[in-house]
This record gives sequence, structure tokens and C-alpha cells, in this order.
Amino acid sequence: MPDHQPLTDHEAETLDAHWRALNYLSACQLYLRDNPLLAEPLRAEHIKPRLLGHWGTCPGLGLVYTHLNRLVRERGQRALGVWGPGHGAAAVLSGAWLEGTFGELNPDAPRDAEGMLRLFRDFSQPGGIPSHTAPEVPGSLQEGGELGYSLAHAYGAAFDNPDLLVCAVIGDGEAETGPLAASWHSDKFLDPVHDGAVLPVLHLNGYKIANPTVLARLPEEELGALLHGYGYEPLFVTAAPDTPHPEVHRAMAATFDTALGHIRSIQHAARSAGTGTGGPAEGTPHSARPRWPMVVLRTPKGWTGPRELDGAPVEGTWRAHQVPLPGVHDDPEQLRQLEHWLRSYGPRELFDEGGRPLPHVVECVPDGDLRLGSVPEANGGRLLRQLPLPSLKPHGVQVDRPGGGSHEPTRVLGGLLAELLTATEERRDFRLFGPDETDSNHLNGVYEATGRGWQGEYEPTDEHLSPHGRVLEVLSEHMCQGWLEGYVLTGRNGLFASYEGFANIVASMAAQHVKWVHSAREVPWRRPVAGLNYLLTSHAWRQDHNGFSHQDPGFVDHVLSKSPDVVRAYLPPDTNTLLCVADHVLRTRDTVNVVVAGKHPCFDWLDLEAAWAHCARGLGVWEWAGTEREGEEPDVVLACAGDVPTLETLAAASLLREWLPGLAVRVVNVVDLTRLMPPSQHPHGMPDGEFDAVFTRDRPVIFAYHGYPWLVHRLTYRRTAHDRMAVRGYREMGSTTTPFDMVVRNGMDRYHLVMDVVDRTPGLGARAVRARQAAADMRERHHARVREHGTDLPEVTDWRWPGR
Amino acid sequence: MPDHQPLTDHEAETLDAHWRALNYLSACQLYLRDNPLLAEPLRAEHIKPRLLGHWGTCPGLGLVYTHLNRLVRERGQRALGVWGPGHGAAAVLSGAWLEGTFGELNPDAPRDAEGMLRLFRDFSQPGGIPSHTAPEVPGSLQEGGELGYSLAHAYGAAFDNPDLLVCAVIGDGEAETGPLAASWHSDKFLDPVHDGAVLPVLHLNGYKIANPTVLARLPEEELGALLHGYGYEPLFVTAAPDTPHPEVHRAMAATFDTALGHIRSIQHAARSAGTGTGGPAEGTPHSARPRWPMVVLRTPKGWTGPRELDGAPVEGTWRAHQVPLPGVHDDPEQLRQLEHWLRSYGPRELFDEGGRPLPHVVECVPDGDLRLGSVPEANGGRLLRQLPLPSLKPHGVQVDRPGGGSHEPTRVLGGLLAELLTATEERRDFRLFGPDETDSNHLNGVYEATGRGWQGEYEPTDEHLSPHGRVLEVLSEHMCQGWLEGYVLTGRNGLFASYEGFANIVASMAAQHVKWVHSAREVPWRRPVAGLNYLLTSHAWRQDHNGFSHQDPGFVDHVLSKSPDVVRAYLPPDTNTLLCVADHVLRTRDTVNVVVAGKHPCFDWLDLEAAWAHCARGLGVWEWAGTEREGEEPDVVLACAGDVPTLETLAAASLLREWLPGLAVRVVNVVDLTRLMPPSQHPHGMPDGEFDAVFTRDRPVIFAYHGYPWLVHRLTYRRTAHDRMAVRGYREMGSTTTPFDMVVRNGMDRYHLVMDVVDRTPGLGARAVRARQAAADMRERHHARVREHGTDLPEVTDWRWPGR
Repeated sequence: MPDHQPLTDHEAETLDAHWRALNYLSACQLYLRDNPLLAEPLRAEHIKPRLLGHWGTCPGLGLVYTHLNRLVRERGQRALGVWGPGHGAAAVLSGAWLEGTFGELNPDAPRDAEGMLRLFRDFSQPGGIPSHTAPEVPGSLQEGGELGYSLAHAYGAAFDNPDLLVCAVIGDGEAETGPLAASWHSDKFLDPVHDGAVLPVLHLNGYKIANPTVLARLPEEELGALLHGYGYEPLFVTAAPDTPHPEVHRAMAATFDTALGHIRSIQHAARSAGTGTGGPAEGTPHSARPRWPMVVLRTPKGWTGPRELDGAPVEGTWRAHQVPLPGVHDDPEQLRQLEHWLRSYGPRELFDEGGRPLPHVVECVPDGDLRLGSVPEANGGRLLRQLPLPSLKPHGVQVDRPGGGSHEPTRVLGGLLAELLTATEERRDFRLFGPDETDSNHLNGVYEATGRGWQGEYEPTDEHLSPHGRVLEVLSEHMCQGWLEGYVLTGRNGLFASYEGFANIVASMAAQHVKWVHSAREVPWRRPVAGLNYLLTSHAWRQDHNGFSHQDPGFVDHVLSKSPDVVRAYLPPDTNTLLCVADHVLRTRDTVNVVVAGKHPCFDWLDLEAAWAHCARGLGVWEWAGTEREGEEPDVVLACAGDVPTLETLAAASLLREWLPGLAVRVVNVVDLTRLMPPSQHPHGMPDGEFDAVFTRDRPVIFAYHGYPWLVHRLTYRRTAHDRMAVRGYREMGSTTTPFDMVVRNGMDRYHLVMDVVDRTPGLGARAVRARQAAADMRERHHARVREHGTDLPEVTDWRWPGR
Repeated sequence: MPDHQPLTDHEAETLDAHWRALNYLSACQLYLRDNPLLAEPLRAEHIKPRLLGHWGTCPGLGLVYTHLNRLVRERGQRALGVWGPGHGAAAVLSGAWLEGTFGELNPDAPRDAEGMLRLFRDFSQPGGIPSHTAPEVPGSLQEGGELGYSLAHAYGAAFDNPDLLVCAVIGDGEAETGPLAASWHSDKFLDPVHDGAVLPVLHLNGYKIANPTVLARLPEEELGALLHGYGYEPLFVTAAPDTPHPEVHRAMAATFDTALGHIRSIQHAARSAGTGTGGPAEGTPHSARPRWPMVVLRTPKGWTGPRELDGAPVEGTWRAHQVPLPGVHDDPEQLRQLEHWLRSYGPRELFDEGGRPLPHVVECVPDGDLRLGSVPEANGGRLLRQLPLPSLKPHGVQVDRPGGGSHEPTRVLGGLLAELLTATEERRDFRLFGPDETDSNHLNGVYEATGRGWQGEYEPTDEHLSPHGRVLEVLSEHMCQGWLEGYVLTGRNGLFASYEGFANIVASMAAQHVKWVHSAREVPWRRPVAGLNYLLTSHAWRQDHNGFSHQDPGFVDHVLSKSPDVVRAYLPPDTNTLLCVADHVLRTRDTVNVVVAGKHPCFDWLDLEAAWAHCARGLGVWEWAGTEREGEEPDVVLACAGDVPTLETLAAASLLREWLPGLAVRVVNVVDLTRLMPPSQHPHGMPDGEFDAVFTRDRPVIFAYHGYPWLVHRLTYRRTAHDRMAVRGYREMGSTTTPFDMVVRNGMDRYHLVMDVVDRTPGLGARAVRARQAAADMRERHHARVREHGTDLPEVTDWRWPGR
């Protein structure tokens, strides 16, 4: 029983006028630098010198824009668009211009002929608006370049946004990607009580750049089964080139109305019950997961554009992908075709002489912040609030003397996160994401505060599942990342905790997010969003049991290759420093923060106060660990970054204290890697003078670093006498083995560091030679034991001051 | 109508004996270092000091191993296993040990008690066998650590292997990943005439590390619809803890028989018709894509293991994931439970007193190379043949003088690849893979030789589709990469051509492949496989039109951070060098080759002979481009790597020749980036003496590099006077703009290079100051033009000798 009326003729006409206006504006963005209203015959000089853009997807995107407008206006449903085929930015820009948001945000492009021309000229021009959806495009929250993330972004946006409808347009090209194919299953994680709804619109226009798409060539029965299998109720809208437009609008309106009705009844049922559809209490069997509606929209590619060119079909084919008439500069026939095409939309029936849209064209457009280009979630910083971060005091671990005790850093962090999750229980603006590793990463303290969100069936053997949980776990790093991005970009906060070795699964997504944030910072009306936070644990040095495939510390390298105004990397050496770093990154804005920390017992080096001061500096001398004499330069600097390197460095310092008591050793620990860079290269960069004060100007530096050694060289190569720096780190020598064997294989063990000190510090004499030999002997002895017994002795995982 | 008989009781008994033996051996690998046959009561000293491994998935994997054996032996079907839940390596090792292949490849671990103990001890031990499937594991061709790739690997293995059945076991954890979710659609690309069959076995054991799995919690109707929608005919086998084992074996055998019968009839129909099921000629409508069978195997996690521990259920839950009785060292009750568990398999009924498997246990095991651990495709190098690489001569472009003409490098390469595809038409051991970018990347010459493989429906507007095509295009970089890996690892050759900016989508897959190859090199019985080749084009400098999201040259950095014995990176500066590099990489073994080359018109600098010599050296001085005098050191070195940097460098050299005729400029071009490294760090590394001869020992070097500048610093920081090197490259300053604006934004334009030369070369005098000013002025003038008109003038994209 439909809860809606069919469109009147008038409504169908006004919707069609809006859509034609969108199509007209989209096509013109690709072509025109003058004569925006076609007030005069189209001539070559009206055409842009360089034709850029993607026409093929625009008419379909435009159709969704038009009908989403109607849904918002007529049905009072607040909605956010996620434009998967973002290379069709022209369509989204057209919608934003037509509804007035583009002109409000860009006062030089108001809703008149001049503003229209400004839009056309700026599109795809240097210094103008990118050809893909980008921060410059109102109402968009993702780059349209690298495909695959729209559906995950849409779910991320919908989480904890109960009144919002997120309409995700998914191109049939994008639908072939892995991340998108997995993301359909996000419906198993959407809580109908606390979350909003996602309405996927699978837009089948049949072709990618040159190939047919997989999904468009499935028999409808098979496609229906696939989407049913993903958990959805697919509603089909199919338009052919010759389908009368009023018919299309009636079908779209009815379908959107049906979908919204279905969504509202799911939400109503769940919210009345108070706990989710079917209303089970936590932990009870639950098999009434709602079947959310979705739309399959089948339209010709480049619909309403040129039917053919030089006898070859264009509309409905891959030839419509980009610029369907590429030869308009030189070919008068193509220019004529273009004019015919553009005039087919009837610009004079859409705009007045001054270029203002006529009233019936914008009749479907909602008001104010309900407009798709103005909905606050698309500029999430507008909604962002400071998190109620707990005091660190109750969580900090007591440290009477450095190394006097040990804790699992991530486990303690779990307690802090639990408190934060409790503090945000009502606000629901913080979530934890992970690929089924929350327990493995020792963060399971969070279950004191909330469960793992789960809308699937329950079994008695489950633990910590809850329909309303704010920990989201699925074995897809892509989904975790996409959800978090969508969550952050709509004004909320989160943390993605992952095995370090598998973080590169989302390397490209992280890079695209950095690019988005970097660009958004340059768009005056974009408000800062929360940092995107990674906690990388179960790291390379302690994946000895899982072996080589789990050992890859390169994500930090990757992230630090991107825009320095956005990227940050922290390697807290112990529990209290991890707490301080976590507190910091959760306060940052417009950043991507990578925190690398261990989950295994780790000596406590700094009490909370010292940790706070150390993290505030980002790096510093640990006087207590060295043997330098006040007022004198040390003989050698032992530097370290990361928990395992810190342990090995302190153990080496300890051995040196015993074996070479006259040697003045300075120990430096680095928490914030970007402090090593010059201020010209990173906002956290340290001035040369400060750097020299810490590392001296000429003493050998033996640097034990958590990841690939060359990263430290890269960050420091402009520093004074960089040649004196020897960096030890992970050099891809991994296997299934023991923790000690891992550091030995990679030359970062305490004994090797001692040998480095002797080798690189001139004038140490015979005693040093003996110390070196002792180190080499102990290294070999312990290593032989590993090979024989398969386990480490405490001596090589422990640390103590000599003589204590 | 089944084409098979139900199992006899004897068959069911022998299959069960085999499976029990597998389970026994798997469990023992986790625990035992002594008493392998339980000849005496189990005591603490028989237990390994460190318990590592994943029990949960082993029984299910073992069941598939057993029944795959039967299928091979009874039905004469050659089969390859792809073990998606590769963390259950113990099960695969058990199968290999039991069939004798493990002992043949590892003579210290024969099929007796001593060999059995060797297997137990080596498992997960330092220097032994990794805990995940790895090159050390016979019959495996993928690492079991990073999940998501088994199905794509299986299809890659099946392509062009018409007689092979590839059984891909997919864990329900892995099934949540994006790459796996997308890979189901590989059925649209499998040619039943020329390719073998893939039999996916979706193994639902219900839990991941701690969470339920999405697919295991779907109602069976919904799961069936999903798999039907993916194009398969799912056959269900369901076992509960108390299902009698003979019943399970009967169901498995019947299901495998049914599946095989179905596969054979698809293949028979297709091969009789000669062109594919339904047998359409190329380009005609085609809608009878076969519906391949697959198996859904539902079993308890940790099946047949301990039912519970301390009152909590273990079998059938996440608690069975790793080591189900972790406390056997200290808890006598757990030790007793372990002994009870191990004895439940009846080792005395499985092995004789010497530890040799009794005949009925191995009755299902096939012979010789039909054994799963010995099938040649699992050690693909055994099958690899040298490609019939065409002569380069007919493809090389004529170069009368450097820069006298221009070609699109990838377009010319397309011609070479077409000839190679034609030459391998019968052998079918070379394929091209890409995410729908073959046309866009100007490689479409390949369609002269073959089509794009496609088993879906055909439309009249399609081009170059063919049921038998050997170009595979799908908009999933993960699938392209996974297919290519599977293809290469089974002894064939291929090339993955992709937009450079999106290569990082498969960053982690590339790293895992490098790790695999690196480890395989150390396994004596593994034969070398073909290089895995990337052609990265549509690169950062010429994605000006697509904008920032398409600009990322970081894949080279990523790959070069991995094992140097495997990784290679080439940046051919023009068409003929690209041909030479392509010829080279297609001959390499056990490598991962990244080739970066442009698709846009590029000046031809070297004729084929010179290109060959230049590529053989990997880098070299281009005397014709410089102005140094014979026998004298140059004043400055201009170095370059990559097509756009080479153009800018030569243009800068040209300007300097005109403006500062007295300046002795040397131009160095680098094709093989790893030549810059010291020989100690890379097998291609150049000795210091040679490096100094090319770059001098003290002259300033202005290096224009294609990607992130710090990579060149990383590769060269140990070289003489590294400080003198100034590297220009991409520094993340991108947008939608023009090619010239791209180089200006990133400071790599010709004018900037001239300014660098003046700034860094001491004692040049007043004329140089004026030249610098001229360069700065021209830079600004052209840049202003870009901002105003949106296009570049030919002056900034062209190159010429001064005065010509």
C-alpha cells in the first residue's frame, strides 16, 4: 500500500524542468566559456580551449539530485548525497548552483548569467574547480577520483545520525571494486534506533571508460538475487533513451517515496521497541534484521546527449564517458550538434534573460540548510564538538623508577577509551573501528562501556555483541576506513585500531583522505574536521609468531609522504606516553594521525607528568638513562623511536654503563617523528638549533627506529653532519621466530647497538674492543639458543640497570 | 541425476581415517616436541615451550584436503588447492606429510615417527616452517596471513589451464574483505573453453578471532541468493559437532562429485561448441554464461577439538581460533584434556609403530604429481617457459636526432604486446590485466591480437569483447593483481597496466607478493617464477586534467622498501627505452618490476640501439645533451629519471646552452632507479667508483625525478658528497590544471632547474645572474598565462636546441 500519491502533471513538469536545467548546466560546464544562455548562435569562440569533464554519468546523477530535492522538500526528510560517480562533479555543481548554495559559498558565482558563466569557466580550470567532486563542491564529502568508497562513506555518515537519510549513488564501475563490493554488508552494522538510513542508488549506465560493467550485464533476476543476498530490497527504475521523461519522473518519485516509507517504518518499529527491529535485549537471539530498501536505476550513459557522432552511437555507450563531441573547435558539424544538444534542454524555458532560474525550475528545491549543497553534514566541521576527553590521571600507571614495572600500553588505553565511550553515550559522537582485532589488540576494556555493533543473528556463544554497540568490527580494513572517514567528515570522532602489518591495505584510501583534508583547508567555507586516527599495534617486532606476512612498518612512510600540513606520526615508547598521545590526537583537527604502539607488556619509563612533558616536546633527552656529565657534550648519542627500539636502546645504554663506565652516553627518545624534520618541511619541525642541542652537532648518533631506517634519514638529511647518523630498524628480515631473533635479524638488538657505538665512536681504546667482543659473544650465544630452543631467555627481553 | 555412486562404508571409513590423521597431525604440530605417536602417556616435557598456531580452521581445511584427494584419485581430476584460511597451515602441512610430498621435499621429515616429529618441531619454530601457508608449504601458492586474495588467485591459476580444477577454500573471515567480495565476479571472465575450473568452497565456521562472521549469520536463503547473484550454483554441506562423520563424508563426496559433474558438463558443452557455452561468435549477443557450482561448507570452528575449557564452550566458538588449550604447561587438567583430544583420533589405528601411515589411511591419496603437494602448478616455476618475445626492431621508432620526433610510448608498446599476444596464441601463457584502462592508457593496439575476455551478455555497442580474449579488464585493481599473481605463480607471464595514481590500491598485495617471492627463493625446491610486472602510466605529471586524486607517484617508494633481491623500478624516458625495458622485465624471474612510462606524446631521444645500450647500463651520461668538454669535469650535473623530468632537464640544458654557453653541463639519465643504490643494498647497485665517474665526486647535481624527491636521497645518501645533490620532484602540489602548471607547482620546471643550477654552481658571475632572472621571468610569464587561459603555450611543452 503506497503511502504517497502519484505525481501530478505539474509536479512532473517542474521536476523535469529542474533536471533539464541540471543537464544543461552540466553540459555547458564542459564546453562554454561564453554565451552561457545561448542568447546568440553558438560560435567557436564561445568554446573553452580545453574540453575536460565526464558527461556520461551526469544525467543520471542529475536525476537523483532532482528527486532527492523533491524527497527533502515534499516529504520533509533531511538528506545528504554521497556522489560515488564523483567524476560527474558537473552534475553536483549544477545542482548546487541551481539551489543557490554554490553562489552563497562563492559570491562571484550567483544565480545569474554572470555567475553561471563563472561556474562554467571555473570548472576544470587551473585554480578553479576540480573535475571530480572535491572539497570545492558543496554537498560533497568525498573525492570522486579513486572509486570504491561511496557506500562505506554513506554508512559512516549515517551512524549516529538518526534523522538523516544518506543517499549513496554508486556507479556500476565503482560497484566492481572490492571495497564497494564488501560495503554492501554494512547493513549488518546499521542500528535502526540510533543510526540514520542509507539509501543506495545503484546507477547502472552500462559502461565504464571502454568496457561494459559487470552488474549492468547481469540478468535482472541475478542482480536482484545478489542485492537480496546483500540484505536489501531492490526497487528498480529503468529508463531507455526513448522513455518519456514524465514516466521516468513518476517512477523515480514513486520509488523514492516507497523507499522512504519503508525506511520510516523500519525506524518506527525499531524505535518504538527501543532496541532495534525485533527488539532483542543484548545477547539474545535476533534474526529480524531489517531489509532496507535500495534503488537500481538503469539509464543510458550520456542520456539526453548526442545520439551519435560520425555514424557511431554515443548516447548509451562508452563513447559518452567524457566529452562526447570532442571536435567542436575544428568541426562545424560537431559545433552544430553541440548547439542542438544544448538547446534541446530549452534554456529559455529554464532561465530568465538575466540567467536566473525560473520559479518552476526550482520549485522542487528545499530551503536553507535542507538544500543538498548546504546540509551541515556535508561540511561536518560545522557540527563538530570537542570530545569530553577523560582526565588521564586515573588511567596513568604509577612509575616509581624507570623500568620498575610494565604494562600493556593498548590495554591501559582501552580503559581510557572505555571512559570516553561512556562519556559519549548520549552524544554518540565517538566510535572505535577495527577488523576483528579489538580483543587481539588488547583493547577489550572498551566493552565495559559499549558492545560491538551487530544487527545479524545472535548465538549463545557470542560475547560483547549489541545492536547498539559503538565498536564496529568487520574483517575489512576498507570498510573500517571508509566508515571512519564518513563518520569524521560528517563532524564526529573516531579511532581505527589495526594490526600494523595490514594498514597498507588502506594505503590509497588514507592518501585520498589526506588529499581531501589538504584541499579542504584551502576552501574558506569548509570547517575543520576531527583528525583521522590510526592506532597501529601488533606491530612488526611482535609479530614474531605470525611471521613475515604480518611484518610491515611501512604505513608511516606512506602517510608521511603526503601533505605535511595534515600528516602526523607518533611512536609512544610506553603506556603513559601512549595515553598522552591518544589524548592529543583526539583533540586535533584536519589531521591524519598514525600512532604506533605495542600491545605486549612494555616497561614503564615515564610517569604521567614526565610523559606529558615529553610528548609536549615530541622528543627529548632522557637524562636518567644516559651517562653524560653536566655541561659537557656526550661522546655518543643513542636515539630511539618506538617501544621495542626504546627497550633495546636502554638495554644498550645499560650495558655500556657497565662495560664502558667512562663513556658519556646521551639517550634521546622521539615520540613525534615529524619533530625530526625542519620547520620548512613540517609544521612540527624543529629548528636546527634545537635539533643540534639535542643531537649535538658532531657526535655519532646511533638511532634505533621502529620501521624502515631510511625514513629517519629522510626526515633528518638536512641536519648538521647528517653523515654521523647510523639508523637501525626493520629491514625486511622477518619470519616466524622469537622477539629477540627479530631484533637480531634486523640488526637492532642491544648488542648490535653496543657494537655500533664502539665502531662509530673514535678513540675508545682496548676496553671498548673487549666490550664489543663481549656484545658480539652474547648476541651469538642468545641467538644460538633461539635456534635451538625456539624461545628467548629473559636476559634478552628484560632490562635492568647494571648492578641492581 | 547423479553421475556418481554413494560412498561405500569402506570408502567412508578410509576417508575418515585420512581426515582423522590430518586432524591428529595438525593438533600435534601446535603442541608436541616429543612422543609423536603418544606411545607413552603425555607429559609436560613432551609439550613445546611456546604454543603457536591456529587450530580453529584446520579440521575444515583437512576435510577439504581429504575429499579433494578422493576427487583426484577416484575421478581422475587434476586439482590444485588454494588455501584461503592459510593461517591453518598445519592442516595443509599434514596433508602434504601424509601423502609423502613433504618428506620428499624435506628429506629430514619422511613418513615415519622421526619425520613426524621433525614436522611437529619445525612448525612455527625459528628457522622452521611459518605458521601460515608460505613457500615452505608444499601445494600452496599464497601466504595465509593477509586475507582476501584466495579466490582471485584461484582464478588466476585457472586461466589458460583447461584441465585443471582449482579448489579455493575461502574462510568466512576472508569473505568479508573487499578483494574477496569482488572476486566472486571473476566467473564473468572465466572462459570454459580455454580455462580450467574454479571450485570455491566457502568454509563457514562461524567465527573470526573474536566475532561472528557476516556470511555465517545470514539465513541460508539469503546466503543462497547472494551466491546465486554472484553467478554460482551453491551446494550446501552442513556439519554440526554431533553429525556422524560417515554422514559428513557421504555428503562431501556426493557434493564434490556433483560439482565436478556439473563442471565437466559445462566444459564439455563449451568445448564441443568450440567457443564457449552458448557458443556465440565474437561480438554477438550472448547470455548463456555458465552457472558454475560452488560449495558452502558449514562446520564448527575447531571441530573435533576440545568441547569446552573451564566450563566455557570451545569447539564451535571463537575460543577455538588459535590454541584451544593454552595452559597445558601448568595445568594438569588441560594436559589431560589435550591427551584425551589427541587420542580421540586413534593414532594407533592411523600409524604403525614406526609412525608410517597405515595403508587404509592413505588409500584416498593420489599418485605422483597428482598429489596436492606435488601438483606442478603449485610450484609454477616448474612449468615456466621463456616467452617468444618479438624482435624489438620492427617496433622501435626511428630517431634521426634526439627530440626530432615524438611518439606515445605506451601506444608503441601496445604494438609489441600485440605481437607477443599473437605469438602466444596457442601457448596462452601471457596475459594483460587492467582496470578498464587499456584504451585510456593507449595500449589498445593489443586488440589486433586478442579481445577483452568477457563471458557476460553482449550488446551491439561493445567493442573488442571476446569470450576467449586474453586481455582481462575489471574495475578492481585487487582482482587484476590477484589474477596476475595466480597466473604468474602457476608458471605463466603477465603485465598489469594501471594508472600510476591508483597503484597503491594494491600496495599491500604487492608487498605480500614480494614477501612470497623473497621467501620462495630460500626454499630449495621452489623454482623461479616470472616477474610480476606493473606498467604504471597516466602518471602524476599528466593527470593534470583529472586532478589531485589521480596524482600519486608513491608506489615506487613502497615497492622499493621491500626485499631488494626481488624489487626493481624502471623509468624509461622515451618510446624506445620503454620497449627495451618491457623486453627486459618480461624475461626476469622472481622479481616485481615497476615500470613507469607516459602515454602522451613524448620526444624520442634515443634510437633503438642507443636505447638498448642505455637500458643495459641502467643509467648513463647523454653526451649529446650536455656541453662538457672532453677530458674535463663538468661544472654541474643535470640528472633526470622519468619522461617528464627528462623533458624538463633537456629543456633546461637547452636554455643553459643558449644563456650560459661557457658552462659545462653534464646530462645524466637514469632508467633503472636501483642502479643508484650501493651494491651492498641492491643487486643492481652501482659501485661507488662508477657512480662517481657518472655524477663526479664534487659537482652540484640537480636531479629531476619523477616521484617524491626523497626517494633519490634515500637511494644515494651513502654516495660521495651526497649533500651536493638537489632533487626536484613531485611534492604533493597537485590540482586540476595544465601540464606546465604541474611542473611549476612542484618546482621541477625547466626554468626552476636553470635557477637551481645558477644557485648551486659557485662562481658563475653576472651573466648567470641575468640568466637566472630570465628564467624566473619566463616562468612567471607562462604561469600567468596558464592561470588566465587555462592552457599551456607550446614553448613550455616543447623542446629544441637553441638556434635550431
